[in-house]
Amino acid sequence: MTNEEILIRSALSVWRLYETRLIRAFHSLSEPELQREVAPGRNRLLYLWGHLTAVSDSLFPLLTIGPKLYPDLESMFLSNPDRSLSNYCTGAYVKEASERIHHALWDVFNRWTVREWLEPYAAAKHANGDPTRNRFTVVLNRTAHMAYHLGQAILAKPDR
Amino acid sequence: MTNEEILIRSALSVWRLYETRLIRAFHSLSEPELQREVAPGRNRLLYLWGHLTAVSDSLFPLLTIGPKLYPDLESMFLSNPDRSLSNYCTGAYVKEASERIHHALWDVFNRWTVREWLEPYAAAKHANGDPTRNRFTVVLNRTAHMAYHLGQAILAKPDR
Repeated sequence: MTNEEILIRSALSVWRLYETRLIRAFHSLSEPELQREVAPGRNRLLYLWGHLTAVSDSLFPLLTIGPKLYPDLESMFLSNPDRSLSNYCTGAYVKEASERIHHALWDVFNRWTVREWLEPYAAAKHANGDPTRNRFTVVLNRTAHMAYHLGQAILAKPDR
Repeated sequence: MTNEEILIRSALSVWRLYETRLIRAFHSLSEPELQREVAPGRNRLLYLWGHLTAVSDSLFPLLTIGPKLYPDLESMFLSNPDRSLSNYCTGAYVKEASERIHHALWDVFNRWTVREWLEPYAAAKHANGDPTRNRFTVVLNRTAHMAYHLGQAILAKPDR
């Protein structure tokens, strides 16, 4: 492995770690358990999980991979706060979406060359030539974003 | 900048982002506000802040930079759960420690060469030759760890 490949592989190991922790935190929860709030008056677990899934789905257009796989998640979990809509999908649906999205992303992440990792993300195309506005930075940011909400979800997780 | 330097600079931008968000979340809180729990029966804000500071301090030995700057934080915020000791330091003390530790780390991070970033961390010295067990991976992991607890701290932050 070249040094560049080691640095990318290191970052992917941390993405993978948090993806695994996310799966462990959410996948075994029942539909009633997903209705729990992380703290009084705060987001439900279902919303956090849907939010993380919708944010991961938005990586497809942001990283110019392709269109979103589950564009219907956006209004439920991204552009509106929790409980602002009258209907939400089930946890089973979020689980299916999460699995398909993360599987497809992981596949792409493992195929990109160093040069592809350093390409600017979509919104940065016309930016001021800052070389850190690249796909790699976005994935590092999203890893931290997963960790941010995972820390909250853990607070409401039932003891088993 | 070489590609390697861009990848490292990208990671540092995310570390810096979460460090800044941490400062914004904690530095303006009063001592009584730091006694709030992030959720009923969970860690106090003081503990989270001290914990994050103690973990950052432990990077000095882990990344073979040198000894810890505030070894007294360990028993209060790392090796024991919240409220298990009868005495805790003040928020003012954690603030001073946090500032000194993060300033010193940032200084080191900006001086390391690519080769220094790829050195194994202390505990990995005798590991199985996996090249991702390096300082870079540790800093990415700690960035996500900052985000994890920041997400919790935000739940208890007073509205201003």
